[in-house]
This record gives sequence, structure tokens and C-alpha cells, in this order.
Amino acid sequence: MEHESDSHWGYVFKILKKSKKSNARAGVISTPHGLIHTPAFYPVGTKATVKGITPAQLNDMGIEAVLCNTYHLFLRPGDKVVKKFGGLHKFMNWQKPIITDSGGFQVFSLGLGMEHGCSKIANSALETGNRRSDGTLLRKASDGQVEKFAKITEDGVYFRSFLDGSKHFIGPEESMKIQENLGADIIFAFDECTSPYSDYEYTKEAMERTHRWAVRSLEAFRRGSSVVSCQLLFGIVQGGEFKDLRLESSKFIGAMDFDGFGIGGSFGKFKKNVKNILDYSVEHLPENKPKHLLGIGSVDDIIEAIRRGIDTFDCVTPTRLGRNGTALTNKGNLNIRSGRFALDKKPIEKGCECYTCANFTRGYVRHLFQSGEMLAGILTTIHNLYFMEKLMKKIRKDILENKL
Amino acid sequence: MEHESDSHWGYVFKILKKSKKSNARAGVISTPHGLIHTPAFYPVGTKATVKGITPAQLNDMGIEAVLCNTYHLFLRPGDKVVKKFGGLHKFMNWQKPIITDSGGFQVFSLGLGMEHGCSKIANSALETGNRRSDGTLLRKASDGQVEKFAKITEDGVYFRSFLDGSKHFIGPEESMKIQENLGADIIFAFDECTSPYSDYEYTKEAMERTHRWAVRSLEAFRRGSSVVSCQLLFGIVQGGEFKDLRLESSKFIGAMDFDGFGIGGSFGKFKKNVKNILDYSVEHLPENKPKHLLGIGSVDDIIEAIRRGIDTFDCVTPTRLGRNGTALTNKGNLNIRSGRFALDKKPIEKGCECYTCANFTRGYVRHLFQSGEMLAGILTTIHNLYFMEKLMKKIRKDILENKL
Repeated sequence: MEHESDSHWGYVFKILKKSKKSNARAGVISTPHGLIHTPAFYPVGTKATVKGITPAQLNDMGIEAVLCNTYHLFLRPGDKVVKKFGGLHKFMNWQKPIITDSGGFQVFSLGLGMEHGCSKIANSALETGNRRSDGTLLRKASDGQVEKFAKITEDGVYFRSFLDGSKHFIGPEESMKIQENLGADIIFAFDECTSPYSDYEYTKEAMERTHRWAVRSLEAFRRGSSVVSCQLLFGIVQGGEFKDLRLESSKFIGAMDFDGFGIGGSFGKFKKNVKNILDYSVEHLPENKPKHLLGIGSVDDIIEAIRRGIDTFDCVTPTRLGRNGTALTNKGNLNIRSGRFALDKKPIEKGCECYTCANFTRGYVRHLFQSGEMLAGILTTIHNLYFMEKLMKKIRKDILENKL
Repeated sequence: MEHESDSHWGYVFKILKKSKKSNARAGVISTPHGLIHTPAFYPVGTKATVKGITPAQLNDMGIEAVLCNTYHLFLRPGDKVVKKFGGLHKFMNWQKPIITDSGGFQVFSLGLGMEHGCSKIANSALETGNRRSDGTLLRKASDGQVEKFAKITEDGVYFRSFLDGSKHFIGPEESMKIQENLGADIIFAFDECTSPYSDYEYTKEAMERTHRWAVRSLEAFRRGSSVVSCQLLFGIVQGGEFKDLRLESSKFIGAMDFDGFGIGGSFGKFKKNVKNILDYSVEHLPENKPKHLLGIGSVDDIIEAIRRGIDTFDCVTPTRLGRNGTALTNKGNLNIRSGRFALDKKPIEKGCECYTCANFTRGYVRHLFQSGEMLAGILTTIHNLYFMEKLMKKIRKDILENKL
């Protein structure tokens, strides 16, 4: 049984098997740089590098695609610089699929997120942030004066660089142009990502703006050279933790001619809400197109999301935890820095075939962390990314064998 | 024409070719973990890891041996811990030859070196250091009191850990035991390394102590299990920048039944002195045994030293420079952080076949440094170590073909 999505060439997404017990499916996304077998997890390479890991090592792990951040690359080295190097694939020497986000997440992380203390991105430039009713995001400058930090308008977002405070603007057209320059295989429509603490009124306003930006993104995408270079454009469903907004956004975005869809934004303050909000978010999305859940990476969440029809994921968690000494295992997280591993000759996870587990003991990795050695984070990141890749392969196999 | 050194089993060192124009020679050192083709450069893996580089990557570069620091491993994780893991080879998963130094260099770097401001090891625990005429090394404690930091006696050295200030003692017997526990293939006799600013009188006193320690080291080595495990013991020539002391040390150490020799210590304040001091240092060493120049790693120095009969080298320079953004090339050092490389599509060095040069541009590596990414140091270190390995292979080839 095969389902193919409509697309401007060949196929974008082929569903190879649908679960009989849930909405889970195993498939394959066709991109200009090859196939992505789904369900898939994308390691994050924010600044055109998965921290501490060479492309050769990613290849060895069997990883098929990585996600880079448009916002960071726009600011440094600049999308035009990346274009001069022939695009992200050549720049970072990763010949397999690359995904870029829209940059819109920074509206959240540099604005509302700061206000509510739940930013996912550390921003040393910011001391504090406040949002005025007109959408202006404020920060306290070093002289104590409150100045504008970012401003959301119908056109797009005015903001300051977290690197040097310089002023910038990104709207849907700019986001498309930047992502066209970066040259990823899968790119995202420009969206506004609200905070978990945003109220219904503001979340609705932001969602409606995201819908208008989606229309403009798709129009700009079609005018640009992205279609010629066969980039795929995914639209993003927003709506915060509100059922009717999620359903509305799903209907609006799902009706548009995107190659696939992303589910963005907040899923509510409580984890138990995740399932419901996800259900509403995918309710009206076409079944035969790929669906990506943005920024979610815990094992439990991934499995629940796959049951609800999500195909792909990205998250910094496996790499960030790895650098900080936490290893992912089938028995939960392992704090490899712990003194109890000082003499432990076992690998991080018994039976794991990653380079780290095949060659090094917990005691050695713990020693590297104690000594502040780079290799500590590298080896634990390798294990964590391999763990995620293995998890996805297992889930895929289970779906193909009717076990999920 | 083959020259074999005497040894307690088979052969330790085989000279395959001697230069007709200089004292340079190409040979091979046989160790329990395989061969080292000389001339050879050993990357330094101070704390049982070459910073940021996996053993697999070292293997890919064709590197045959690494040098680890006894002092650091004695303090953390402890030589007994390493022994429990089956020795350094198993601990760090490096199955080819490993060399450990004697730990005596720390007498210099934590004592006299600090006094004279020329320590090679950053020591955050130390604010200042002074040496009393009795050999006591002082430091100023946080409460302003001057306290003993390290003390050299006939027995050995009493010192405080740079990690936690705890008190320790290492003498010749302890150094042998620690190195036996670490289990490297080539180990060194315990020595005192004087400062370039030490006067004749003190340098002579330290050299004579080093000679007495060499006798005790060799005796302890023979009593221990090192001989059974086929470790090789190298004696160290000292004598600072003084001709007669170097000749005397060369004669004394060279007459002892070591498997090979290290040339340690200061070569004078001025680089032009290096050649002479080296000549005196090797004057009385047996020709048919391998000679290691401790801690010297600049290309010019290496070539001059090889002409004078030195076979092997170790130095942190290629790795340290790499992490800090300086690439070694045939045209000299390249500051890869420089803005002039922002759009440079060339590899670090044209024609270089290392992983970095085969896959990445200067512009990308520069971007990684600008962004503070781990991969920046990793890629540049890979290039630098490959550069050194290639240099040694070229020199070896030149010797074998009578071109040096």
C-alpha cells in the first residue's frame, strides 16, 4: 500500500506502511540530496555544525539529515556568504539532506520567551525583556534605559542581533530569500511562535498573522529560485495550547499547497496536554504529506507524536545533554559524571554499537568529563545521536512489521 | 646496513639507513604495541586523550604513537585507576605505542618555571612562586602567607596537586611504579628539569641529582614488572645550556643500560644555542639506540635535531596551536581566524590530503572559530597533526633516499 503526496516533481513523500493500531506510518521523503527514511530524528547543527561532531562521524552513525538554524546563519556568517560557498551542503560538507527552520522561532526566543523566562536560547545580550501591548519587545540597556529589542509588525520582525546588537528585519519574503541562499532541502514558512504564557487573545492574533505570513511565504517561494533548485517548503501550524486555534490553524495551513508541514509553538504548560494539542494540530493536515514536530526530542514525546502521525523531529537535547555529561539509554538518562562510574568498565550502554560504546568505558568517559576534555562531550554526543538514530530505526521497523 | 641495539629481547631499535651528509637516520623502534617508524613525532595526549581527537581519527592520520603525561594521570584519575582498566592502552582505546614522560618535568613547570615566569603549564592554583636556596619552592597562599609549594630532596619531589592542593611525593621509585601502572610502551627515568634561568651551580647540582635518580630509576625498573611487560626505559640527559654539563650528562647517562635516551631540559635562552647544546647532549650516547628530544616541536628545530641524530619528538604545539586557530603549513603558520579568510574557498593548505583540507574551506573553518564551535579546533588540530605526520614521513623518505 503506497500513498504519494502531490508535488511539483516526482514525489516528495511516500508512505510505505501505515500502522493498524495508531496513526503512525513509515515512509520516505525524497529531497534533492537524497532520501530521509521516516520516522526520522534530525540532529541540530545550529551554526552549520553539529557541535563537536564531524560530518564523517554523523555519516558513520547512519544519520540521514541535519537541521540548521536560519536565524544564526543569517547573522553569522550571513546567508549571502553561505551562498558564495555554494550553499550549506558545500559549506559544512554535508552531502545528505539539510533542513532549515524559518527563523521565526527567534521571535519567540528573543522576545516573548525572554519576557516569560522560558527562552530556549541563551541570550547574553539581554538583561530583561518586556512586551508592550503594541507588540514591542523591550530590553533594559546597560545604562538602565529601556529600549526596543524586537518589534513584531504585520510585515515581519524587527530585532537586534544577539551577537552585536545590530538591527535587522526578517519577514516572510526575507525568510524565504535567506533560506533560498542557505540552500537547505527542506525549508519552513515564516511563523510567529508564541510563548506558553501567551493568553488566548494574543495567541490567536499571532496565529492569524502566521497564516498571512504562510500565504506570503508560499508566494515568495514560488517567485524565487527555490522551486528550480527543488527545495521543499513546509508550512507551520501554530495556535498555542488552545484547541480551537490549533484546529483552525491545521485547517488553514493544511489547505495550502505546502510540500509538508511543521507543528510549532507551545503545547501548553503541562506535558499531559501535548497529546491533545498534537491531535488538534494534525487534524486537518493531509495524510499523505510529511509532518515535522519542531523542537521536540524526548523519547516519550517522540513515540507519542509518531502514534499521532508525526514523521520527523529535531531537537538540541541529545547533543546538549551529551556535552553536559548526560547519556541517553534505554533505562533513562545516565549522569556519566557521577563518581560511581569512576571504576566502571562497562560501556555507557550495554549492547550499544556506537563508536563510543564499542571502544570506551564509562570510567574513561567520566575521567574525560572530570578533566574538562573536549573528547568527553564528543564521545557522549556520539552515543546520544546514535541512540536517537537507533530508536528511530527501531520504531520504523516496528511500524513496517505492524508492531506499533 | 642495519644496526641493532642491544636489548633484553629481540631488538628495540633498528637503524635502516644513515644519512651520509649528517647524523640523521631512519629506523624503527619495536615496542610491545607495534612499530614506530623514525623519525617520528608523537602527538601529546596529556590526560589520556589528544584534545578533541578520537583514536579513530589519529589512526586515520597514520599516527603511530602518542605521549601522555605521568604527572597529570598520577593526579587524575590516578595510575592505580588506570591500571584497573588494564593500562593506558585499554583506558584510552589506543592500541598502538604509548610513551609516558617521567613526571619530573613538573619539578620544573610547577617550581622553578613559575619563579622565572616560563612555566609551560598553566597553573591556576599558583599566584606566585619563589625558590629558596635549599630547594624549597614557595607560593603565596590566598591569605597572603608564603607556603611551601614543592620541595626537591635527594629522595624526590614533594609537591602539591595543581587540582586541589593535596600533598604528594614522587621520586625515582615512585615514577617507575606509576609508569609501570600506566603501562606505556616507552617510559622515562625520573629527572629534574631546570629552568633556562638556573645558574651553572644549580644546574650542575640538579644534573648530578638526575644522574643518581637515573641509577635508582633503572634499578627500580629492573625490580618491577616492567621488564616482564616489555616496557622500554629511556634515560634522560640534562645539563641546561652548559657545554661541559651536557657532555658530562651525555657520558654518564649514555653509559647506562637504557633502551633509549631522552634529551631534556633547557637549551639556553637563545634559539641559536639549540644546535650546540644538542650536539653536546648526544655526544656520548650510543649511536645504535633511539634518541628522543623532549617537548620540542617546531619544524625548524625538528629538522636540525634530526640532522644531529634525534629520532623522535613530542610537543603540544601542533594541537595547542590548532585549538587556538593557527594552522601549520609549508609556508609557515596561518592564523585561520583572520577576516581575510571569510570568503576563502581554498583548503587550509593546497594539496594537503588531511580530512580537513579534503573536505572544508578556510572560510568554513574561520566561521567555526568565529562562532566558538568545537569543530573549529578539531578540524585545525587534525590538519596540524597530519601536517606533522606528513613532515616526518617526508624526512624519513629523504633519509632513506639519501636526500637529507
